[in-house]
Amino acid sequence: MLKDLSYKSEELKYQLLKFMDEYVYPNEQVYEDQLNEGESRWVVPPIIEVLKEKAKAQGLWNLFLDDEEYGQGLTNYEYAHLCEIMGHSLIAPEIFNCNAPDTGNMEVFIKYGTDEQKKQWLEPLLSGEIRSCFSMTEPDVASSDATNIQGSIVRDGNEYVINAKKWWTSGALDPRCKIAIVMGKTDSNAQKHQQQSMILVPFDTPGVVVKRYLPVFGYDHAPHGHAEVHYNNVRVPASNILLGEGRGFEIAQGRLGPGRIHHCMRAIGAAERALELLCKRAEEREAFGSKLAEKDVIKEIIAESRIEIEQARLLTLHAAHKIDMAGAKAARKEIAMIKIAVPRVSLNVIDRAIQVFGGGGVTEDFPLAAHWANARTLRLVDGPDQVHLRDVGRLEMREQLK
Amino acid sequence: MLKDLSYKSEELKYQLLKFMDEYVYPNEQVYEDQLNEGESRWVVPPIIEVLKEKAKAQGLWNLFLDDEEYGQGLTNYEYAHLCEIMGHSLIAPEIFNCNAPDTGNMEVFIKYGTDEQKKQWLEPLLSGEIRSCFSMTEPDVASSDATNIQGSIVRDGNEYVINAKKWWTSGALDPRCKIAIVMGKTDSNAQKHQQQSMILVPFDTPGVVVKRYLPVFGYDHAPHGHAEVHYNNVRVPASNILLGEGRGFEIAQGRLGPGRIHHCMRAIGAAERALELLCKRAEEREAFGSKLAEKDVIKEIIAESRIEIEQARLLTLHAAHKIDMAGAKAARKEIAMIKIAVPRVSLNVIDRAIQVFGGGGVTEDFPLAAHWANARTLRLVDGPDQVHLRDVGRLEMREQLK
Amino acid sequence: MLKDLSYKSEELKYQLLKFMDEYVYPNEQVYEDQLNEGESRWVVPPIIEVLKEKAKAQGLWNLFLDDEEYGQGLTNYEYAHLCEIMGHSLIAPEIFNCNAPDTGNMEVFIKYGTDEQKKQWLEPLLSGEIRSCFSMTEPDVASSDATNIQGSIVRDGNEYVINAKKWWTSGALDPRCKIAIVMGKTDSNAQKHQQQSMILVPFDTPGVVVKRYLPVFGYDHAPHGHAEVHYNNVRVPASNILLGEGRGFEIAQGRLGPGRIHHCMRAIGAAERALELLCKRAEEREAFGSKLAEKDVIKEIIAESRIEIEQARLLTLHAAHKIDMAGAKAARKEIAMIKIAVPRVSLNVIDRAIQVFGGGGVTEDFPLAAHWANARTLRLVDGPDQVHLRDVGRLEMREQLK
Amino acid sequence: MLKDLSYKSEELKYQLLKFMDEYVYPNEQVYEDQLNEGESRWVVPPIIEVLKEKAKAQGLWNLFLDDEEYGQGLTNYEYAHLCEIMGHSLIAPEIFNCNAPDTGNMEVFIKYGTDEQKKQWLEPLLSGEIRSCFSMTEPDVASSDATNIQGSIVRDGNEYVINAKKWWTSGALDPRCKIAIVMGKTDSNAQKHQQQSMILVPFDTPGVVVKRYLPVFGYDHAPHGHAEVHYNNVRVPASNILLGEGRGFEIAQGRLGPGRIHHCMRAIGAAERALELLCKRAEEREAFGSKLAEKDVIKEIIAESRIEIEQARLLTLHAAHKIDMAGAKAARKEIAMIKIAVPRVSLNVIDRAIQVFGGGGVTEDFPLAAHWANARTLRLVDGPDQVHLRDVGRLEMREQLK
Repeated sequence: MLKDLSYKSEELKYQLLKFMDEYVYPNEQVYEDQLNEGESRWVVPPIIEVLKEKAKAQGLWNLFLDDEEYGQGLTNYEYAHLCEIMGHSLIAPEIFNCNAPDTGNMEVFIKYGTDEQKKQWLEPLLSGEIRSCFSMTEPDVASSDATNIQGSIVRDGNEYVINAKKWWTSGALDPRCKIAIVMGKTDSNAQKHQQQSMILVPFDTPGVVVKRYLPVFGYDHAPHGHAEVHYNNVRVPASNILLGEGRGFEIAQGRLGPGRIHHCMRAIGAAERALELLCKRAEEREAFGSKLAEKDVIKEIIAESRIEIEQARLLTLHAAHKIDMAGAKAARKEIAMIKIAVPRVSLNVIDRAIQVFGGGGVTEDFPLAAHWANARTLRLVDGPDQVHLRDVGRLEMREQLK
Repeated sequence: MLKDLSYKSEELKYQLLKFMDEYVYPNEQVYEDQLNEGESRWVVPPIIEVLKEKAKAQGLWNLFLDDEEYGQGLTNYEYAHLCEIMGHSLIAPEIFNCNAPDTGNMEVFIKYGTDEQKKQWLEPLLSGEIRSCFSMTEPDVASSDATNIQGSIVRDGNEYVINAKKWWTSGALDPRCKIAIVMGKTDSNAQKHQQQSMILVPFDTPGVVVKRYLPVFGYDHAPHGHAEVHYNNVRVPASNILLGEGRGFEIAQGRLGPGRIHHCMRAIGAAERALELLCKRAEEREAFGSKLAEKDVIKEIIAESRIEIEQARLLTLHAAHKIDMAGAKAARKEIAMIKIAVPRVSLNVIDRAIQVFGGGGVTEDFPLAAHWANARTLRLVDGPDQVHLRDVGRLEMREQLK
Repeated sequence: MLKDLSYKSEELKYQLLKFMDEYVYPNEQVYEDQLNEGESRWVVPPIIEVLKEKAKAQGLWNLFLDDEEYGQGLTNYEYAHLCEIMGHSLIAPEIFNCNAPDTGNMEVFIKYGTDEQKKQWLEPLLSGEIRSCFSMTEPDVASSDATNIQGSIVRDGNEYVINAKKWWTSGALDPRCKIAIVMGKTDSNAQKHQQQSMILVPFDTPGVVVKRYLPVFGYDHAPHGHAEVHYNNVRVPASNILLGEGRGFEIAQGRLGPGRIHHCMRAIGAAERALELLCKRAEEREAFGSKLAEKDVIKEIIAESRIEIEQARLLTLHAAHKIDMAGAKAARKEIAMIKIAVPRVSLNVIDRAIQVFGGGGVTEDFPLAAHWANARTLRLVDGPDQVHLRDVGRLEMREQLK
Repeated sequence: MLKDLSYKSEELKYQLLKFMDEYVYPNEQVYEDQLNEGESRWVVPPIIEVLKEKAKAQGLWNLFLDDEEYGQGLTNYEYAHLCEIMGHSLIAPEIFNCNAPDTGNMEVFIKYGTDEQKKQWLEPLLSGEIRSCFSMTEPDVASSDATNIQGSIVRDGNEYVINAKKWWTSGALDPRCKIAIVMGKTDSNAQKHQQQSMILVPFDTPGVVVKRYLPVFGYDHAPHGHAEVHYNNVRVPASNILLGEGRGFEIAQGRLGPGRIHHCMRAIGAAERALELLCKRAEEREAFGSKLAEKDVIKEIIAESRIEIEQARLLTLHAAHKIDMAGAKAARKEIAMIKIAVPRVSLNVIDRAIQVFGGGGVTEDFPLAAHWANARTLRLVDGPDQVHLRDVGRLEMREQLK
């Protein structure tokens, strides 16, 4: 990186690296085994709570929060470095209470929650006691254009009545999931970007139906899972509306910036893990008379991977820095750019590693295929690449012509 | 295509297309449901046997066999057209008794089997009563260089004793799997390409242990599955050796040509299915003020897909034709070329379709992610692309310099 | 290729290959030297007329014409094979009187010319005595959308008066160029595709001004050159209008099909030449301890090149065959597809060869850079790729939804 | 960028931007015209000396030199920002006395020159009175492997006798070129990397023969040109050897680091220029019913270009920073990475701009084709990409395994 980290961040970084080596990597298989041996896939493997306690005890907790009161006050640029490290392992983010969508939800509570809402939902989220989900995307419309969203939130006396068919509500299958933030229309006649609102729905409210989990390639992502959730005449107090009617878009925009930095840095972490595995495998395997590591074609894919990763990381750090300096809105182009560029790089690198691992690469014997499926999905999360490319093109054109 | 099909092939093609529409597509979900409702994932969904009977009754059976006695005597070029159609659906090949590895195994029996072996194994395979598997790849060595293979086949009196740790033994978990063809070393001191032999191992022989299934991007591919199989002191009669000691490579080479045509044409079929789904989805969905189908960026990906598919199909048909005209050995470069080019195209097209389907694209609501995982694996089957690129480069260089 | 050539075509092919070896390749440098030693770059090197006589004497003449009266009656599929061979050398097409834009112009004369026009212009073109040019593209508008074209053709008594600013009028600088076909508007009020007409303009008509040549990546393409030509109050007899007012689009469409086959097959020929040079160079050069030919990274680029070329050729032959069978209009999608796919392949292969030649690759010591510049330009001729991608996407979508 | 520039650098940057607008861009055509109207292409257009005086007067001079005595003491990181700006115009670097190979040669004189050599050659180079060249590459061997170089430098009494056939001696055709640094073998029996030496050859020494210029695509790059230079029994005083016999490699390595930063930043500048031109053209042109700027496919290529450029710039700045912090040797991997990544990006962006400009894009009406040819050549300068990929792969593997 070009810009130095603060002393505190450097310290946290080395502490985190040590924690990963000591506790995370050695327990990946334990987690997998506990998950397979549980009475169902939707039971949380006990090891995760053990590791959460360890992390919390070390202060490796809620690192994503730039808020000094609730978190550690790291900048986006600083946290980005830590987030990348967590991205090496699919089980890591939860261990440090840094997993989506809880991170975004906690930020929403801090910014827009009432004191009561903070007490009821933010505190147990901060302490890792409960989990949460976010219901925005709908199966029946192209949700990348958020104005398409049809779910309704209708005022009825002191309550709002919610009717919506949502999917990709990640974490909804986790037994610890207690609260959902739901986006829907409160006013179809308002201006295009003021029709939508966000509202809190305690997950045990009558009418909340978790229909099924959505597999990602063949993965169920248990015990969290991505759910299709139906909200059938769900009634919540009027005070559960966040920030006020018609403010849904505003809240949605606000949570995007840091969230994308997190997604992208984790994707870079996954790429680094893949490259490390690739190199080690290349050193071990022999074919056609020499070690893979000695073959120029292998050196080329290693080089291409390193070149891509370095650029993706610099671009993401640059975007994080811009958010820190000028805010997420000013960094809109930069944030859209990493959303496009980084998942591609991560997919490229992991794909090359799979190729070097041969058949083993597509199995669960190595964490390549699972990381790949995640990174692939990232190209769709918050809208497909095409939507972001259009945005970047439009913003660039505007700057060029002014 | 440039070269006309025979009247018979054209007839079969239209019959097959009709069968797909009437019986295959409508039963994909039935198959999935029966699989999920079975007492385990490793029970064959009953619908498959029903459909096999229908296909057999219509003469849509064993179409892959160019042998006129056992099959219908179609050329590789002719069958390629039918094989592509089967590739549209993941459940189709089995319905027509045209699924790997049974196809390759049946060809081996026809070419190299004794009358007795044919009676015992070939006949029930031809009639679809049993299934079979092929054990070559090993987890502990880079098996793309087949000289690395370590499994041992040792003569002991009238028997051979087999000790080997194999994986990617596809179909081994199918309850109907009765016979394995196993490749291993009979003579470590022989010339490099004469050390290996192939031998028949009835699957109920003591010492045959199916250790586990290998997931492919999270998919179990039940009820067939790709297995890790250990052969622990497995004893079979000496007559089970195929063609004689040291002939393993020769047999392996012989089965590659048509097999790759099949794999590639099915991958093209998968791409066509994806493109069809993409176009229909683009017509239905609307975002940012217009139908996806009306957006130039969508037209571009449709165009790129069509251009890639056409070229991939022509290249594969060209290779099939060359096998028909000059034999698999003479078509070695052409066969290697399709192995590299076609899976890439199939992956590109399916990936674009996933992108247009958004989140739905990575789930099982549409057959895209599953087809993608298959096509990705194809880049590793019979050795990774890199091995084939080296071969093509070497063969091309030889021709250029002569 | 999948479909056999006729005996006649095979004969011509071998004769042509022999001619290339005996007369064309050995004279490339002679041509270059004569061009450089001439009193200006815009004088035709004498060797070219010598070689034209030889080719004509052997019957290797006007091979592109499928018309049996004027040419040899070869199909597009058949000529495509010959055209590729000519594409190996930049000086070859003219030697066989098969160079653009004369080819397209001759076809126009045959289809739409009056007897008198044929006598005056077609005959000397057929015999190679004169050359011709085609003025359509304009510098001031995006000419890929031909409805943008502004040049005017106004009836005035028994004459038409032409005012137009054209560029990319290839061949206009050749001292032998005697006739232009000019496209312009005759009626701005007619329906969009009936506003344009084509008219014959003898090149010595007052008001025809060749302003300058247009370099192509630094090349002047002398002595033919691509010219900016201004038509200032140019008056020609009313009978010079081709086919009638408002028929310009119709004529333009008609000449596109075979013309694109020619362009693409020559681009494939250029790619083959580059691959041949690449392989020979790789055999001669040594670096870092071994011949380039022995390095796997070189084998990979050779393989990728062969794979791309084979597919591009098959796609083009397929399009040519479709024109032969169903006409250019029915083959519209196929023709657009090769326009997109083939130049890319040619550029890829030549670029790889340049890379293997190092610094020499970008000079005139080898015919790589010049071929590359040609192929690059081909991505713009008749509209940039983007226009054709949109067409293919639209046509594909239409087929998928019907 | 992530790291702030010093106040001085920021000042220089804005001064430079202003100079470019006021003096450079408006004189590009003047330069071209003077070049074309000169008595030969190898006469320096007078405007260049006028602009050099202006730049020198403003202190925009020798900015590349990190040496505080001879230059302005800017770091590589700081100069990189200025160098990018110069890269916008092909005539700019010379105006600021920052053009290759003089820059590298001046650095060599500063580091290794005797006082006398400095007085004789460095001073007039620093003041822009003379120019210089660098003779290393040879046409007869793969010079990317510098151990292949065959030119001989033989001690004979108080002199060295040089016999060598060199090419790509850039600037040798410039009438102001007075001195060459020549690399050749002094001892074939020494260790591999100690066989080579560098020696000063005044360009008017008998036996120095400039054979011809080497075109780059069709460009002659007059009046500097890339020359083939033969050194036939050229005798120079023994004191002309640089640093001592066998030190050629050491000197060659030393000049590579900053030189590649310069090349890459200029290539990024060229890409920025192309993107700017692209955007403006897209705003002006209309096709198929709307401005190009409004089309999503155009927005996509603008976005892709911006994404690529940002990453390439960050990577290059990162490498420059590493040279500043740790030296060129420690930054070897970073320097190799930009050598691979940046020219590709520049080529991609310029190529897209050409596509948007249609036919105009390949001519000299816009500075796209010329910039493209430069960037293409950059993929070969100092060895083709393949050599650097191998290096990066090797270095990465070493780090991963330690």
